[in-house]
Amino acid sequence: MPHPPDPEVIREPSPRRGHVSVVRLPDQWFVLATSSQLRDRPLPAKLQGVPVVLFRDVQGRPAALLDRCPHRNVPLSLGRVYLGQIECPYHGWRFDRGGACRFVPSLCGEHEGKARRTPSLAAVELDGFIWVYSTPDKTPTSEPYRFRMLGHTNYTHIRQVVAAEASLYSTAENALDVPHTAFLHRGLFRSESRGITITAVVRRKGDRVEAEYIGEPRPPGLVGRLLSPSGGMVTHVDRFLLPSIVEVEYRMGTENHVLVASALTPVDDFFTQVFTLVSFRTRLPGSLLAPLLTPIATRIFRQDAYILRQQTATIRQFGGEQFVSTEIDVLGKHIWRLLRAAERGEIPREDSSEETRIPLVV
Amino acid sequence: MPHPPDPEVIREPSPRRGHVSVVRLPDQWFVLATSSQLRDRPLPAKLQGVPVVLFRDVQGRPAALLDRCPHRNVPLSLGRVYLGQIECPYHGWRFDRGGACRFVPSLCGEHEGKARRTPSLAAVELDGFIWVYSTPDKTPTSEPYRFRMLGHTNYTHIRQVVAAEASLYSTAENALDVPHTAFLHRGLFRSESRGITITAVVRRKGDRVEAEYIGEPRPPGLVGRLLSPSGGMVTHVDRFLLPSIVEVEYRMGTENHVLVASALTPVDDFFTQVFTLVSFRTRLPGSLLAPLLTPIATRIFRQDAYILRQQTATIRQFGGEQFVSTEIDVLGKHIWRLLRAAERGEIPREDSSEETRIPLVV
Amino acid sequence: MPHPPDPEVIREPSPRRGHVSVVRLPDQWFVLATSSQLRDRPLPAKLQGVPVVLFRDVQGRPAALLDRCPHRNVPLSLGRVYLGQIECPYHGWRFDRGGACRFVPSLCGEHEGKARRTPSLAAVELDGFIWVYSTPDKTPTSEPYRFRMLGHTNYTHIRQVVAAEASLYSTAENALDVPHTAFLHRGLFRSESRGITITAVVRRKGDRVEAEYIGEPRPPGLVGRLLSPSGGMVTHVDRFLLPSIVEVEYRMGTENHVLVASALTPVDDFFTQVFTLVSFRTRLPGSLLAPLLTPIATRIFRQDAYILRQQTATIRQFGGEQFVSTEIDVLGKHIWRLLRAAERGEIPREDSSEETRIPLVV
Repeated sequence: MPHPPDPEVIREPSPRRGHVSVVRLPDQWFVLATSSQLRDRPLPAKLQGVPVVLFRDVQGRPAALLDRCPHRNVPLSLGRVYLGQIECPYHGWRFDRGGACRFVPSLCGEHEGKARRTPSLAAVELDGFIWVYSTPDKTPTSEPYRFRMLGHTNYTHIRQVVAAEASLYSTAENALDVPHTAFLHRGLFRSESRGITITAVVRRKGDRVEAEYIGEPRPPGLVGRLLSPSGGMVTHVDRFLLPSIVEVEYRMGTENHVLVASALTPVDDFFTQVFTLVSFRTRLPGSLLAPLLTPIATRIFRQDAYILRQQTATIRQFGGEQFVSTEIDVLGKHIWRLLRAAERGEIPREDSSEETRIPLVV
Repeated sequence: MPHPPDPEVIREPSPRRGHVSVVRLPDQWFVLATSSQLRDRPLPAKLQGVPVVLFRDVQGRPAALLDRCPHRNVPLSLGRVYLGQIECPYHGWRFDRGGACRFVPSLCGEHEGKARRTPSLAAVELDGFIWVYSTPDKTPTSEPYRFRMLGHTNYTHIRQVVAAEASLYSTAENALDVPHTAFLHRGLFRSESRGITITAVVRRKGDRVEAEYIGEPRPPGLVGRLLSPSGGMVTHVDRFLLPSIVEVEYRMGTENHVLVASALTPVDDFFTQVFTLVSFRTRLPGSLLAPLLTPIATRIFRQDAYILRQQTATIRQFGGEQFVSTEIDVLGKHIWRLLRAAERGEIPREDSSEETRIPLVV
Repeated sequence: MPHPPDPEVIREPSPRRGHVSVVRLPDQWFVLATSSQLRDRPLPAKLQGVPVVLFRDVQGRPAALLDRCPHRNVPLSLGRVYLGQIECPYHGWRFDRGGACRFVPSLCGEHEGKARRTPSLAAVELDGFIWVYSTPDKTPTSEPYRFRMLGHTNYTHIRQVVAAEASLYSTAENALDVPHTAFLHRGLFRSESRGITITAVVRRKGDRVEAEYIGEPRPPGLVGRLLSPSGGMVTHVDRFLLPSIVEVEYRMGTENHVLVASALTPVDDFFTQVFTLVSFRTRLPGSLLAPLLTPIATRIFRQDAYILRQQTATIRQFGGEQFVSTEIDVLGKHIWRLLRAAERGEIPREDSSEETRIPLVV
């Protein structure tokens, strides 16, 4: 008496269905490490789910290869750098910065067979970051983003690297979203609503979109008090630039200017690294302000990281995203549109003169 | 010399094939918590793989919503209850017990857009349990099961909540299976066989099936001795009621009556929560018996939980179930038939006059 | 405003594609345990992803069944051995060495129904190992491999059981690969290259392939010095025999002979157990040499196990293997060809007179 009689397909405990805000962007520059992280040893990294090994050649230039020896698929990052080449720890095969195999121990014949190449990714060092091009074996047709205020005098710069267990899209939207700041970061960044209606002016320009907030008084929270003790009106612009740059810019009066610029790296579908440079010029000396601002920034990021991790867990649990938006999700849909275009290799070049005005209560 | 030359599909380490005793039952009531577990904070739960958040409205009535904010898919259960509504911790959206969005911070326009609804599940509080209807956004057409002896005088009641890492089917069959009690629970519940042949009379009645055991002497184990010190014949009925109620009922003489009624909740395909109410009236005072019976019941359940966990691991390992039964698996095939019918929404209503008699040696 | 608007298929974080060096070999003998591991209790094991339980019958003969009770799919290995039969811990069903059900507690009728059989695997005890035939319910048409030097006088034997997180193919190739020894095991087994060109003579013979290394001086590492203090030429043969035997054989002068023979067991697609017997006869007494060689062998294996684990992780990460070979991957392609043939049940029987000569620098 075999039982139960009817054969049936097994059910997956967590059916994977629905859509997700995950993109894989070809032909784009991403930060894979800070300059100081990449020393004389190989550094394993990952970009859009693909393991990559970083190392420096004899001239100190960064190099990036797929982190897999073509011979027996051992990670090259477990080997050593020898004469500016990376050496596999299993049989000692060596590869140069272009991925060509230069040496095979014990082999009598030709060492540089084409089949022995490792795919390589273009890599450059700029502004203290190692930038890597996302399409292997391709000559870049663009330049990496430059951190604008780095060369300017009288600016203080703080670097920070944090990680979010979330998609590139959700991380970028979170970084540029205004409404959650009054709620999730209550008291730190903004307070509960004071009932003031401000206007977000959204401007689309080719590969970027920005929102300027008009009529915004000085943020009442701790951050606002530190940056602008005298109060007054604020110029506040949030900006997204393809492939993954987010800028939050504040000007309070003529003296105070803060630019928080972050390069987001889609390490994996739901894991994003955030390389941030905070550049500011204030009436107060930067060296005084930095130790005050850093713990606040850390706490804000922890709250965001917690929410993003929970969001990702829920998306996985339900097998995909189902987002509903309102008009005050000011930049989200534009970020999404730009990412999707970039995924298809269609980066908008034309400027739109379109300007949208959206009221918000803060 | 690329090698190996022939491209091949990768093999999954654990191929998932075969059938499993997993059902997803629509339009049914299940216990998701005890009354005392649901207080003034949101309580996360799960039903048939779907995360659900429970909370109480201003009148203290239980409410159940899908545990996912429709805005950015953060779990609502991480937020707070505010004025009887549940508030998302990310942007502060608030939902009432029906799932309607009642407030969106910073938004100037209409707050109650229909697209902003969260699916809700009917929820009622009965007999100290929070019952939730398994189909979202649907008005129930039935009532939850009632624990029969709760109102009766002279009965002692013990509540217990335990969990089994097994399917609803396997957990229900285990709870009502007689042959394993003499083997797995040797010495506790029953002893090794005494070679007495008894008869199981199986009766099918619409949405339920029961087995009455005739000719059974008092169980020789510890439990039997405690419940009926004077021995004698026993009336013993095991019963399954859709969707997931199991009852084990003993009468020994006129004075002793024990009803162990459990509501089984299919939390996930292979995870079942068991909400049990033991109601009994014995010659010995209940207050004396309870502290003696509880550790025995706990030990019996631990043995069952261990076996069910191992069974589930094996089913997963082999990619599905392959059960073989004999006639003394008295209720299993009927439970299976009822669950499958309920899954298709076809709950049998007619009474079958069919009565099957099966001999067993105990 | 539902967003993002376009429904899309979810992306798998680690797409599984490509081919892998995994084979499932029918009709072959594999070692599942050492004789001393199988005592009077059931021993759980696994072969090619399938759980197997080993036990001894009343005569002490080994028996092997699928480790799943056909009744309710609980692992038989959690039960006990009773009168030479294995007993399920759930309901007490008992099975003999052939898988026939011999007893069902509480059942009145016939106990030995054919549907209640558990598939059994042929099992024999030879040379201190329990060998099991890979196809259930089939009478073997071949004999297990015999460890050649076991009966010989003046030989010392060391047994070792280790595990590799790698496919059978990768583990076998690693065990027989010469080039990596100079690199990965630098200093231990071989030193850095001394620039001597030797010749590998590859001979294919039906179900086996061997490489004899000609012109090889005594290995300069620690192992060579211990085995052959006086130096001199070395006869070195590496051999693979279907389904999974690897032999590494050294002769140095007339007195010294070392045979490292290993039976590899494909426990799972990427998990291989290695049952090794080292047999040697040297000028130095074996009892002196054994305590010196064991820690070196352990260290060599740890290095190999580390590399193989990393290789497997990379293969999983990239969703499959992509191996590139050179001519000095002397035996790899032949092992692969033999394994593939065995998987299809086509074991080559004819001898090839083909002999290939490959130069290597060591």
